[in-house]
Amino acid sequence: MRAVTFQAPGEVRVEDRPEPELLDGEDAIVRIDATGVCGSDLHIYHGRVQIEPGFTIGHEYVGTVLDVGDAVSTVAPGDRVLGCFQSACGRCWFCRRGLYQRCEHSRTFGHGATLGSLQGTQAEMALVPHADLVLRKVPEGMSDEVALFAGDVMGTGFHAIDATPMRPGDTVAVLGLGPVGLCAVQVARAAGAAKVLAVDTVPERLEVAQAFGAEPVHLTEQDVRAAARGATEGRGVDVCVDAVGDPRALEMAIRLTRACGHVQCIGVYAERAEVHMGLLWLNAITLGGGQANVIGHVDRVLAMMSAGVLDPTALVTRHMSLDDASEAYAVYDRREALKIILRP
Amino acid sequence: MRAVTFQAPGEVRVEDRPEPELLDGEDAIVRIDATGVCGSDLHIYHGRVQIEPGFTIGHEYVGTVLDVGDAVSTVAPGDRVLGCFQSACGRCWFCRRGLYQRCEHSRTFGHGATLGSLQGTQAEMALVPHADLVLRKVPEGMSDEVALFAGDVMGTGFHAIDATPMRPGDTVAVLGLGPVGLCAVQVARAAGAAKVLAVDTVPERLEVAQAFGAEPVHLTEQDVRAAARGATEGRGVDVCVDAVGDPRALEMAIRLTRACGHVQCIGVYAERAEVHMGLLWLNAITLGGGQANVIGHVDRVLAMMSAGVLDPTALVTRHMSLDDASEAYAVYDRREALKIILRP
Amino acid sequence: MRAVTFQAPGEVRVEDRPEPELLDGEDAIVRIDATGVCGSDLHIYHGRVQIEPGFTIGHEYVGTVLDVGDAVSTVAPGDRVLGCFQSACGRCWFCRRGLYQRCEHSRTFGHGATLGSLQGTQAEMALVPHADLVLRKVPEGMSDEVALFAGDVMGTGFHAIDATPMRPGDTVAVLGLGPVGLCAVQVARAAGAAKVLAVDTVPERLEVAQAFGAEPVHLTEQDVRAAARGATEGRGVDVCVDAVGDPRALEMAIRLTRACGHVQCIGVYAERAEVHMGLLWLNAITLGGGQANVIGHVDRVLAMMSAGVLDPTALVTRHMSLDDASEAYAVYDRREALKIILRP
Amino acid sequence: MRAVTFQAPGEVRVEDRPEPELLDGEDAIVRIDATGVCGSDLHIYHGRVQIEPGFTIGHEYVGTVLDVGDAVSTVAPGDRVLGCFQSACGRCWFCRRGLYQRCEHSRTFGHGATLGSLQGTQAEMALVPHADLVLRKVPEGMSDEVALFAGDVMGTGFHAIDATPMRPGDTVAVLGLGPVGLCAVQVARAAGAAKVLAVDTVPERLEVAQAFGAEPVHLTEQDVRAAARGATEGRGVDVCVDAVGDPRALEMAIRLTRACGHVQCIGVYAERAEVHMGLLWLNAITLGGGQANVIGHVDRVLAMMSAGVLDPTALVTRHMSLDDASEAYAVYDRREALKIILRP
Repeated sequence: MRAVTFQAPGEVRVEDRPEPELLDGEDAIVRIDATGVCGSDLHIYHGRVQIEPGFTIGHEYVGTVLDVGDAVSTVAPGDRVLGCFQSACGRCWFCRRGLYQRCEHSRTFGHGATLGSLQGTQAEMALVPHADLVLRKVPEGMSDEVALFAGDVMGTGFHAIDATPMRPGDTVAVLGLGPVGLCAVQVARAAGAAKVLAVDTVPERLEVAQAFGAEPVHLTEQDVRAAARGATEGRGVDVCVDAVGDPRALEMAIRLTRACGHVQCIGVYAERAEVHMGLLWLNAITLGGGQANVIGHVDRVLAMMSAGVLDPTALVTRHMSLDDASEAYAVYDRREALKIILRP
Repeated sequence: MRAVTFQAPGEVRVEDRPEPELLDGEDAIVRIDATGVCGSDLHIYHGRVQIEPGFTIGHEYVGTVLDVGDAVSTVAPGDRVLGCFQSACGRCWFCRRGLYQRCEHSRTFGHGATLGSLQGTQAEMALVPHADLVLRKVPEGMSDEVALFAGDVMGTGFHAIDATPMRPGDTVAVLGLGPVGLCAVQVARAAGAAKVLAVDTVPERLEVAQAFGAEPVHLTEQDVRAAARGATEGRGVDVCVDAVGDPRALEMAIRLTRACGHVQCIGVYAERAEVHMGLLWLNAITLGGGQANVIGHVDRVLAMMSAGVLDPTALVTRHMSLDDASEAYAVYDRREALKIILRP
Repeated sequence: MRAVTFQAPGEVRVEDRPEPELLDGEDAIVRIDATGVCGSDLHIYHGRVQIEPGFTIGHEYVGTVLDVGDAVSTVAPGDRVLGCFQSACGRCWFCRRGLYQRCEHSRTFGHGATLGSLQGTQAEMALVPHADLVLRKVPEGMSDEVALFAGDVMGTGFHAIDATPMRPGDTVAVLGLGPVGLCAVQVARAAGAAKVLAVDTVPERLEVAQAFGAEPVHLTEQDVRAAARGATEGRGVDVCVDAVGDPRALEMAIRLTRACGHVQCIGVYAERAEVHMGLLWLNAITLGGGQANVIGHVDRVLAMMSAGVLDPTALVTRHMSLDDASEAYAVYDRREALKIILRP
Repeated sequence: MRAVTFQAPGEVRVEDRPEPELLDGEDAIVRIDATGVCGSDLHIYHGRVQIEPGFTIGHEYVGTVLDVGDAVSTVAPGDRVLGCFQSACGRCWFCRRGLYQRCEHSRTFGHGATLGSLQGTQAEMALVPHADLVLRKVPEGMSDEVALFAGDVMGTGFHAIDATPMRPGDTVAVLGLGPVGLCAVQVARAAGAAKVLAVDTVPERLEVAQAFGAEPVHLTEQDVRAAARGATEGRGVDVCVDAVGDPRALEMAIRLTRACGHVQCIGVYAERAEVHMGLLWLNAITLGGGQANVIGHVDRVLAMMSAGVLDPTALVTRHMSLDDASEAYAVYDRREALKIILRP
């Protein structure tokens, strides 16, 4: 079968690969109908996340079940399914607490040996372990390009809000309007936030945020702190999502947040950083971060997407063939698309 | 000043009453601009809730602050305000836990001696105790008839959902589509419910529920249990709101709800009732009930109404003059209106 | 192997049965070292819960792993383990939410075809499905008779408190001091309840409750409501556990509980019952019930038992041989023991 | 009356001051029976917290009510009371959410003009504003020196645990065993922590922690990370309390905590600090901090102290006369006492 493989920094290639086979009773084989290119794929493309040359990449996918192992009970051959970007065993200490993102046996699609040697989904077929936990049937009437968000980007946007104490009627700020930030905007509104301030520098992204119900705030051309205060009688926002992953974003997040509020870092931090602990402490702010629990959220996310309460359609700005993966990565690297969908 | 007073079952009258005066540092005097007629007013009108003849009734109100006591700091003369239907002291055991609906010194407007001898708001002016807790400024651009809902009916609909473990993506059923039930429908959707089943027998109410984003289900002409199962892959709804207050509604609520789900009785129960404890236990359902914590919710409700996320406009079906209160009660008693607004 | 089998109401018998064999990759075979006789066994003994004659009964057990399937990773042959009274799959809708007691594929040991045809543990050996979820290693230094409580009675006592909003400093009442009620007393104290009122009519049980840190209250010789009020400045208890399962207990529970408090029915209800909904509503009490989520709690329960914070030793009042099971059931039926431990 | 006043860094003095008088209906006048010297008093003593020379200091106190304003309803002249270290209005945005530590009108005893110009309690008498919120009757049988902890140090230790998601059965580590850290140890155990690791370098403090039920770990002579892993099957602790307030403690706290665990900084941070955000993010740790909500906790703390579940007696290592305040501060500054009680 054809598969998109990593070769070297800046180079991916469509190659022939052996078709996957069932190895365990909980496995499924899925024929890929559509697969996305995601910001994390760029980390591999840039060589920041190192994987073995020739490894198949990709982790966003919708497809059709071809075969399942004996122990699989929730999906069957012929089912149209979407999947989560990582697997979980359902039995370890973390899974037993519903913390699927920390499963002791978790494997992430398309991230090489360091994350479980699970071949990616930018291919004609994929092996899916622990299929009952990882796969869900696509609700009737939902398009491939929408469904595919549930197992990765929208699940992450959902986590950005769900991991906070946000309640209906609150005011939320989202810093950074990439796909995850924009999904967080939409989730915040869908979960009852009365106001969402959406902060970025790119006019197109601010426009999408506005269409999603947020008040757009230009990072450099407007006074972000004044906007936050103006929206909250001077207190600051109840919850601030840092969807950037940069110490300056975190500093701003802490400054925008009211006393006893919450800052959630959904953007990735990989190193030590200077944090204004004094302000955080003075204002009794709680700070959270980390990868999303996509398996834990996927049913809710799908239900909301199926009801139209969440709708990532506006984020899909490009469709290409799997055979053009090399060009797709170049396009995405030049930030010419929010989300590219590849079809085999 | 003119005021609507209870005289006898079936008889209310507009009479002259002395203007209220400040009695305590936390008091405010409010000139009433608009006041509602509510289902609980009918309990008085019907004599089921007994109050003294000549007592001023009414507890939904929007107005303008005329004067405040020394200790009031959040509103000032000239402010346009809305108020909650009851007062709370902010200092007793229950208030210190935020359970304002159970304040040991609570007084309810327009309910006579048994609820604190606080004259009602269907009058030209009203005395408001503990004004910092009871009153809020009307957000700019909000009409009287919308604002007035925050302190009573919409606050109660908010409580119907807030008192449950409902989370975004859940499926909710609301039984009984009076004003409170319809508000609960709207709150459930605004808080992220993916699906809301709205159950009643009155076509007009089912239509309003549908306009509020619910799936309408006719109690007798459709199979309600089949609808609940159909919406949830057979499990039953996550949360069911009983906005009726009748053992048959409660029985249905328990039958519609999934294992480990929640039933919330916002409709009033005043007596013993046969409850299917066996089914409740077997399915590990939790059951809650009681009056709404309107003071605790009013800021959130106002923020959501101000953002347009909640909008009770469709419930206001009649405007009349305070002088026509007698006719207004007769109209409301004949169920010819969902909400009547009186203006002095 | 020898096994205790149900024959007819009032009759159990030790018979020869075939040894269990691994049927699935998640199975384990456990050699039983100690097994308990429990109140639910009496329901079978009395014929109230109907099972097939010749079915092996029992569901409390400690033993040694003899063999495991390929997919088992947390226990291995030779491990000393305790187990939960029911199994769960870890993959269905309810398991994915941590509601293991409602697993769609759950099987309960020793309860015949209606609860999954899983042979009981009052035998020399037992087949344990989904071993990673059901079994845990016995912490070093913990006796068989203590460990065995974690998977059933103490897990249920833990649930009786964990399913409520009880917080450190609260006052709790427990109605009914059978083994589960007494465990609930101990859990409430261990979780920080400042006061626990323990209500029963049996002096020996009241004494055990007192030794566990509770204030004993005799149901008929003392004024229970006065005791609850006296302990709470007149408000009523924050949380009341009904460990009886009788409408009179529920009525008392509702009467003992403060406004906005919680009643938890851990005692079984199987039918309709008259409930004082008026009082429940007036006081905004929440009501919960249902079987315990023992798999969800077992790690915490074990940790607390291992630390000595929970200690059911005082409940073990009789040791007998598995061969004397017939007599053991007769003894337990005459209420001559709180817990009988059988050893093969 | 006599009062301990700040004069200059390193110098306090007992001076004559005018007796306080009621200024507001919610005020009370309390005759001080016992007052503590606290770590925060040392910040003033050292000049790090600047207050006006001649200002009365102290904020821990037990006494007898001499007089109350008209609006006070929960205490009366003659009542033996303890008080919280700060006042709250009960009516502002934060108070209405129970966040009393952030009251917009909060005043802290003995901290000069910057914290509300409220004269301290190291004096013969004190004026207490908002007495219904600030004061509580001392439970029968509780000594002055125990009661006094509820309104400051034990309330802060309670907050250190209550502000975290700790649940019964968890493992907790406390870094820094000053009075607050030791109270946190006691609260963690009382709230059901199965294991508490208590980390410090001072043998006497480690011994007290051990007597409170913790496993003592010497910061430099033992391997703290190995201890945390050994207590948790290698995962790390569920909750870590940083009772130091130093970036090195925070770094250790993050390293000791398991994935999806929580770090609570009860020790004060006043400046920017380098935080290992990469590790925090990778392990999805939440971080909280800030001053304790002592008014919000005081009823629970008192109930637990009254039940003997919490008992700070071991922390009181010195009794002195108010007249010897100058010497008391010198003793405390030399760390020769954990808590000094002064009596007028």
